[in-house]
Amino acid sequence: MELDDAIRGRRSIRRYAQKPVEESLVREILELGRHAPSSMNGQPWIFTVVRDQATKRELSDLKNQYCPVEKQDFRADFIQAAPVIVVVCVDLEVSHDRAIENGVLAAASIMLAAHARGLGTVYMSAYRQDEPAVSAAIQRLLGLPPRIAPISILPMGYPDEAPGAKAMKPLDGIVFDDRFEHG
Amino acid sequence: MELDDAIRGRRSIRRYAQKPVEESLVREILELGRHAPSSMNGQPWIFTVVRDQATKRELSDLKNQYCPVEKQDFRADFIQAAPVIVVVCVDLEVSHDRAIENGVLAAASIMLAAHARGLGTVYMSAYRQDEPAVSAAIQRLLGLPPRIAPISILPMGYPDEAPGAKAMKPLDGIVFDDRFEHG
Repeated sequence: MELDDAIRGRRSIRRYAQKPVEESLVREILELGRHAPSSMNGQPWIFTVVRDQATKRELSDLKNQYCPVEKQDFRADFIQAAPVIVVVCVDLEVSHDRAIENGVLAAASIMLAAHARGLGTVYMSAYRQDEPAVSAAIQRLLGLPPRIAPISILPMGYPDEAPGAKAMKPLDGIVFDDRFEHG
Repeated sequence: MELDDAIRGRRSIRRYAQKPVEESLVREILELGRHAPSSMNGQPWIFTVVRDQATKRELSDLKNQYCPVEKQDFRADFIQAAPVIVVVCVDLEVSHDRAIENGVLAAASIMLAAHARGLGTVYMSAYRQDEPAVSAAIQRLLGLPPRIAPISILPMGYPDEAPGAKAMKPLDGIVFDDRFEHG
């Protein structure tokens, strides 16, 4: 798939067909994910591929339990029905104080690579700055030592929904030359 | 360009040819950048396209001044020679506590879209969690109010270097099924 089409066509997918996702496809996608840039070329990524149903349920419960009030309408239950959940983590020892950036840059490539292969994903966070219990619980669940920080949760599966085009803010209102000119 | 080729072929570029970058190309790239996912579909992005030489010099000076000790070998002077610097910012009022994620997800698409058009970029941060003076100085420089947070600095230009392939960690050492298995 052309890059531009992948970027324009990717949508957040929260309903998945009950069709298995081939292991080789997941590997291909993660192989691409690790080509992302990383601070000081630390390549700090650890990708945990969750297929175990009990683990999916625990992740879903954790997301619901620690969901901020304003996002309560977005329950995480749907991730239990995803054939695969990729948890993107980074090794803090080689993250050079840019743990979030390193994780998110890989997550971005993973979401595009998945879309180009007909798979749907949605970006979800695996931590809360104001609530360290979230990271700690995910670390316990996935057997991650304290130095491996979970950053993103990416449920992945063949889409069982086809969201329409997204209404976008006008480009003129978000691009500025040299200086921001709004009040 | 094919998505996979864009992801694999993109490298961090810090030397730029003295060839102007067409305004229309920059617009195309930013148009793609805003197709990134954002928390609660807030689309919080503000892209500031810096071509003014004094502003580039100031950005470079700020990056050097606030560079962490371990990264001192990477001086920011080179960004003064970039034909364009895109500063990716987010409006905190519609970022839903995910300012960094929102900014970085757009930055990732921008870097890939630039690469697919023959342009080189490199990811640089526009803030330091432990040093609010960085954001504040960039906000003053670009006329950004406090609610618009600078996240990424992306110098952009036709490459005047061709870095070789990057040595990568083995995939088997970074992908795990269900649980992380290392000590």
